[in-house]
Amino acid sequence: MDVFEAINTTRAMRRLKPDPVDDELIWKVLEAAIRAPSGGNLQPWSFMVIRDAETKRKIGEWYLEAWNATYGRIKDTVTADAQGTRMYSSADHLAQHLAEVPVFIIGVVRTGGAGTSSSGSYIFPAIQNLMLAARGLGLGTTLTTLHRAHEADVKELLGVPEGWETACLIPMGWPKGKFGMGARRPVEEVTHWEKWGETKSRDGKAGS
Amino acid sequence: MDVFEAINTTRAMRRLKPDPVDDELIWKVLEAAIRAPSGGNLQPWSFMVIRDAETKRKIGEWYLEAWNATYGRIKDTVTADAQGTRMYSSADHLAQHLAEVPVFIIGVVRTGGAGTSSSGSYIFPAIQNLMLAARGLGLGTTLTTLHRAHEADVKELLGVPEGWETACLIPMGWPKGKFGMGARRPVEEVTHWEKWGETKSRDGKAGS
Repeated sequence: MDVFEAINTTRAMRRLKPDPVDDELIWKVLEAAIRAPSGGNLQPWSFMVIRDAETKRKIGEWYLEAWNATYGRIKDTVTADAQGTRMYSSADHLAQHLAEVPVFIIGVVRTGGAGTSSSGSYIFPAIQNLMLAARGLGLGTTLTTLHRAHEADVKELLGVPEGWETACLIPMGWPKGKFGMGARRPVEEVTHWEKWGETKSRDGKAGS
Repeated sequence: MDVFEAINTTRAMRRLKPDPVDDELIWKVLEAAIRAPSGGNLQPWSFMVIRDAETKRKIGEWYLEAWNATYGRIKDTVTADAQGTRMYSSADHLAQHLAEVPVFIIGVVRTGGAGTSSSGSYIFPAIQNLMLAARGLGLGTTLTTLHRAHEADVKELLGVPEGWETACLIPMGWPKGKFGMGARRPVEEVTHWEKWGETKSRDGKAGS
């Protein structure tokens, strides 16, 4: 699959089949992950592969609790339009059925203390590689962080040592739906040329 | 280009030609960037494209100052082996010649306050997409964050408002060298199965 096609069609896949995923495919997405850059090439990352039913059940409970406490409370705001309603519905489905997803991959980053947005630079490029590689293999993923509301519990459950943070949880499995392009704001709106606020259209004309 | 080839050969390209890069190619890498996920699809990102010589000169000075204050001080440690020496040499070259790179792309993320490693989840997947797309077009990039030592100065220079952070600076241009696979620790060493410390080899045998 062409790299641009993979990039364009890697959208959040939150409805996944319970069918198992072979070790070999898991190794493939992890090998893609570790090709990512990290400052000083320190590679201060670890990846945890979770398929144990009881571990998934516990994490799934914490995830659902965090979902209800955050997005559950703003349902009316989020579902104000059709796109928001679709997203809410699929994210709610994931929260209700997380433990049924065959594989969780948890990205763990060594922070040594309080994480900053720079600690994110050490793990999320790897995670994006992983999700693109999964797309290339036909596997669905979505980037989630809600489990972090129970970070201490998750770390204890999995044995993650002090000085490391579980940055994200990637549910991975064979998708029920089709891959496709997610909705985004136009690139012209989020691109500033030379100075903040200096936008332009793709035909070269200065924007508002 | 196949997505796995792009992932495997997107290594840090720090020796770049001063030759210009067309707007159309810049739009292409930015369109790849915005396909990335962000929590709640909020897309709290902006991308600044810098080609102005004077702006690049100032940022280049701050970058070099930060380089000398950090990596410059640990040169003897970093260059203890051949791989470290190569990396140091190319990173030093970039620091000395940053302003000559034709394009800087600065990833900016809305944090609303102090960034955490979760704020990284809102911008670095987009940045990895951008770097892979650049690779697909033959353009070299590298993920840098050293300018953040002068975050307040950079924000003032570019007019970035409060509540936003410049997460990274991506120098982009036509590479002098060849793309290839960067050195990484084996994936088996950084993958934990079910519990922290439970590694295994790719043939399925439990690791140490």
